Amino acid sequence: MATFTLPDPVPSPYEDAEHIWKACHGWGTDEKAIIDVLAHRNAAQRNQIRLAFEEQHNENLIKRLESELTGDFERAVYRWIFEPIEREAMMAKIALKKKLDYQVIIEIACVNSPKELLAVKDAYQARYKHCLEEDVAAHAAGDFRQLLVALVSTYRYDGEEIDMGLAHSEAKTIQGAIEEGVGSFDHSEIIRILSTRSKAQLRATFNHYKDEYGVSITKAFAADPTNEFAHALRTAIRCIVSPYKYFVKVLRGAVSGKNTDEDALTRIVVMHAEKDLKLIKEKFYERTNVTLEDAVGNETSGDYRAFLLALIGN
Amino acid sequence: MATFTLPDPVPSPYEDAEHIWKACHGWGTDEKAIIDVLAHRNAAQRNQIRLAFEEQHNENLIKRLESELTGDFERAVYRWIFEPIEREAMMAKIALKKKLDYQVIIEIACVNSPKELLAVKDAYQARYKHCLEEDVAAHAAGDFRQLLVALVSTYRYDGEEIDMGLAHSEAKTIQGAIEEGVGSFDHSEIIRILSTRSKAQLRATFNHYKDEYGVSITKAFAADPTNEFAHALRTAIRCIVSPYKYFVKVLRGAVSGKNTDEDALTRIVVMHAEKDLKLIKEKFYERTNVTLEDAVGNETSGDYRAFLLALIGN
Repeated sequence: MATFTLPDPVPSPYEDAEHIWKACHGWGTDEKAIIDVLAHRNAAQRNQIRLAFEEQHNENLIKRLESELTGDFERAVYRWIFEPIEREAMMAKIALKKKLDYQVIIEIACVNSPKELLAVKDAYQARYKHCLEEDVAAHAAGDFRQLLVALVSTYRYDGEEIDMGLAHSEAKTIQGAIEEGVGSFDHSEIIRILSTRSKAQLRATFNHYKDEYGVSITKAFAADPTNEFAHALRTAIRCIVSPYKYFVKVLRGAVSGKNTDEDALTRIVVMHAEKDLKLIKEKFYERTNVTLEDAVGNETSGDYRAFLLALIGN
Repeated sequence: MATFTLPDPVPSPYEDAEHIWKACHGWGTDEKAIIDVLAHRNAAQRNQIRLAFEEQHNENLIKRLESELTGDFERAVYRWIFEPIEREAMMAKIALKKKLDYQVIIEIACVNSPKELLAVKDAYQARYKHCLEEDVAAHAAGDFRQLLVALVSTYRYDGEEIDMGLAHSEAKTIQGAIEEGVGSFDHSEIIRILSTRSKAQLRATFNHYKDEYGVSITKAFAADPTNEFAHALRTAIRCIVSPYKYFVKVLRGAVSGKNTDEDALTRIVVMHAEKDLKLIKEKFYERTNVTLEDAVGNETSGDYRAFLLALIGN
């Protein structure tokens, strides 16, 4: 269920395209008008507007907006305007630019169902004429490469069947590796387990781990908080086992502390506004006693703030 | 184009099922009658016969044949009767039993197009309630595991675009690894290249390798013929770059030398009889000056021989 509101009736795509065109062609850009249209249309409607804009003005809407808008607001609009699958393909590409943003790659690989991940990989190939696997492999090295390539490559079994014997033996394998020290153990077994077992099986393994060793698997990997690879493992486990808890954690990190993390904030809001942001908002409030609207309102400003709040459904 | 012949007209599935039922219920089994039906029906027709048999006799045709037939003949019929995708899933499972038959896993991963491999993986999951990746990972270790899991996991780009700069740099990377000695170098770069690049890109890289270093990449990996991992790399390269040459090589190995390799012979015949065995036969003759019919006729006997020759289209 979407968190943003739709007008009733929804204007035709031609009216919307015209509205945006005018907003781009007056004295300066009318950002409010752009937000009023785009933050209140679903993916299919936004796509229709893109087509209508191209048809009426022989101009690409996305390119026009890129040249009109700036900063965090531009980046948020740019991410929002695409359809969900195309957007994830594009966000994977962005995450591979400059410094590798492994968190985004892990999210895409581990939050999606196997079929959804496949659709993202198809969209990635159609758009960039490369496969996601090779681009991830080319941008990462060592253990990170092994982990990330395995996570984006795999086509997990999606059934609910669980093998408890396997859960026990693999919990033990993980514990054996952890006892050698997070920084020094051979990661290949952990990577194999994390990247090939079904999500249901992994949940069983991690639950058994907690029962057996008295600590959650993510805590066990957090023994050395400076170890970046252990952080990547924890991220993958969180995305697989409890994605909502994970999203709340990312949002909390993004809006607290000295510097707002606009990339992470934009990503979670834009990727979930049309899907499950309502649930994420509830869980955010449960965890922080602050509404997401208030948190975002306090940490952001200007058009970016107005756009996010419209998507969050203020 | 199939190599075996179809009768004209083709009997109804009910007549065929009845024919097989009678062949199984006389004094001893009438193997010839079974061959006369099954070796001369395509996948859709065989499937109809399975359904008709089940309907008429409330009995599973495959189980019945398993209990009637023996040895290489039984194994060949068992593999033949399935539809192509289902058959490959089953052959992957068999290759993972007992001693890992890595050659079959590499064939399935590297000969198929990315979409075909995906279909095999779907069929594997539907049948075994596991993903192929986890079963391969659980049956292999060390470098073999890294290579095989990467090959079965990947979802390569299937386009024809080539980046010649990349072909040059990756040919150099491979040469650097080879110079360290096939037995001792770090395989992760070779595995990355082999398992993530598109087939078109790999062909460009290997062609450039030959131009630059004056020897084919498979020859370069053959420096130490006892090195099994290098053999696996060569198999993957052959399956990707020139599958027909590879099939001919497997057939030659299967029918020459002291011991016939029935598993390999059956596999190639059964997997290709309905697809491209005609071409493989031509290439086999070009390479050996012996027809595949003669070679198989000389090396096999009995019902197994009759069945293979019917599929090859004697």
